[in-house]
Amino acid sequence: MRVLITGANGFVGRELVRCLLARGRLRGQVIDSLLLLDTELQGVPQDPRLRRHCGSITDAALIRRVLADGIDVVFHLVSIAGGAAEEHYELGYQVNLLASLELLNQLRNKTLPPVLVYASSVAVYGGDLPTKMTEHAELRPELSYGTHKAMVERAVIDLGRRAEVDGRVLRLPGIVARPREPNGLRSAFMSDLLRSFAEGEAYRCPVSEQATAWWMSARCCVNNLIHAAELNGVEPGSQRVWQLPVLHLSIAQVVDALAASYGQERRSLVSYAPDAHLEALFGRLPPLKTPLARAAGFSHDGNAAALIRNALNPATPRHLSLTGDSLYVATNPD
Amino acid sequence: MRVLITGANGFVGRELVRCLLARGRLRGQVIDSLLLLDTELQGVPQDPRLRRHCGSITDAALIRRVLADGIDVVFHLVSIAGGAAEEHYELGYQVNLLASLELLNQLRNKTLPPVLVYASSVAVYGGDLPTKMTEHAELRPELSYGTHKAMVERAVIDLGRRAEVDGRVLRLPGIVARPREPNGLRSAFMSDLLRSFAEGEAYRCPVSEQATAWWMSARCCVNNLIHAAELNGVEPGSQRVWQLPVLHLSIAQVVDALAASYGQERRSLVSYAPDAHLEALFGRLPPLKTPLARAAGFSHDGNAAALIRNALNPATPRHLSLTGDSLYVATNPD
Repeated sequence: MRVLITGANGFVGRELVRCLLARGRLRGQVIDSLLLLDTELQGVPQDPRLRRHCGSITDAALIRRVLADGIDVVFHLVSIAGGAAEEHYELGYQVNLLASLELLNQLRNKTLPPVLVYASSVAVYGGDLPTKMTEHAELRPELSYGTHKAMVERAVIDLGRRAEVDGRVLRLPGIVARPREPNGLRSAFMSDLLRSFAEGEAYRCPVSEQATAWWMSARCCVNNLIHAAELNGVEPGSQRVWQLPVLHLSIAQVVDALAASYGQERRSLVSYAPDAHLEALFGRLPPLKTPLARAAGFSHDGNAAALIRNALNPATPRHLSLTGDSLYVATNPD
Repeated sequence: MRVLITGANGFVGRELVRCLLARGRLRGQVIDSLLLLDTELQGVPQDPRLRRHCGSITDAALIRRVLADGIDVVFHLVSIAGGAAEEHYELGYQVNLLASLELLNQLRNKTLPPVLVYASSVAVYGGDLPTKMTEHAELRPELSYGTHKAMVERAVIDLGRRAEVDGRVLRLPGIVARPREPNGLRSAFMSDLLRSFAEGEAYRCPVSEQATAWWMSARCCVNNLIHAAELNGVEPGSQRVWQLPVLHLSIAQVVDALAASYGQERRSLVSYAPDAHLEALFGRLPPLKTPLARAAGFSHDGNAAALIRNALNPATPRHLSLTGDSLYVATNPD
């Protein structure tokens, strides 16, 4: 089996690479080749199954070379983050929209449609969310990033209907805990809070303690991505888009969980200087019910303590389990 | 003022060219140059204001040449019809999706955003419509044509929000009466029925007498397109997508109106051989309420008699009225 990961050197991509190498199998078959596509691939582990393709996804000829020997499963993760795509429109347009469309078009295969897992985003909903948020909420993206994600979702659905690409779309919430480096994410504070607390550093939080957001660890996210690829029976006309279950937590709840793990004394390291714009964008997210996604086997981290554990202890031995059950999950319905 | 029409030699495009030449003005200014883009431009009238650009909209360099001297208003009409785009996916993908995105991207202008009127389609809703159909219906396109229209709608909204292109999207119903020639339209029967009846020829109708569809004459459509271009005060955050009001008529009602105009004896020329697939796609359209579009000044033909008159007498002197009020409209709320 040949598997491709675009954005393989990104925060989620690296976790996915590690997890797939550890599992060794996907959809019941041995992974012979794991193809990695990213602009930079240093830091990726050494493994004879890895095939490195260093370059931009906007290079259509490169995509053709990557796909030349056939492909069974694609995890399409690469994207320019929301804030960066808003500021550098052309870059986001080329990467998030056009390159995704080109990839999809090259994947079209009428005899054996490849499985595609597309990482979409809760940004497709926009900021003006209903109080009772469900999986059926209307898409009203307020940034070019969310607009382009919503457009690619439609393309995936259409090619699924045509039975040319067997696509599965997951809408991801904020994934933590990203490395503390400039990443163009407006929601970077979610990760920064966790990293600072874990490392015992002072952190000035740009949203209030009452701010509520949707959280998921990278490990949980990767489990969901793999689950999406493993799903069988996604027929041309069936559902292809899932809003992932999310943990709906206030900053206060997250700080409580951090304090329980790292010590109550560290609470004093966190101060609050809410930014009205950020608070409006990321601080008033309502609870989100996802019964369809749960019925399809998707899950969130379980609770705040599990989120912290999954997000900040990425190198625990559990992670290398061949069964893929590396996730610490507490049962806690959303 | 410089105005561009893509698909200028299409059925609606030709009517729009005639109407704009007759009006001579748009948005309060004299039209100095009317730029026509189409793969074939024979049959277009002679007029010193016309600038012909013969070629494919998929040629990005051609679009650059067309726009090189600046542009104030664009009517983006060109598209591969639904049936043809479904059968020849790559062609529809290139024309309906990629070329539209390229055009939009070339139109981006942060200082003086050009006005863009985009002809979208009721195909964005798909076939499984709610009984009480409104302007807020969910988009569930069932063909690549409708998918690509819905995607371009999103791009138009996004660039409007960014104040880079001042776009206005109209969702068009079936426009009649097209010439009887292969056009890749699954709804061609709507026009064929009118043309056959007007010319006194036998017609075998592929949907039943009870089939209900959404109708609009080309003349009415063009009036709406021009109205969309004339709208002022479309601010970055305001509504940019309108479902045009439509006439909801059964085939029997249309035949009644045709018989009233052309003679009752011609009724016998129409026979019925319903095709289950066509009937499902185009024969069960529910009434459609469009209060927002009406409030914004858009309208349908008024009633069946007016539809027939507008659709089948395109050369009446009214049409050349400089006021643009060439339309025969009966008052009849939808």
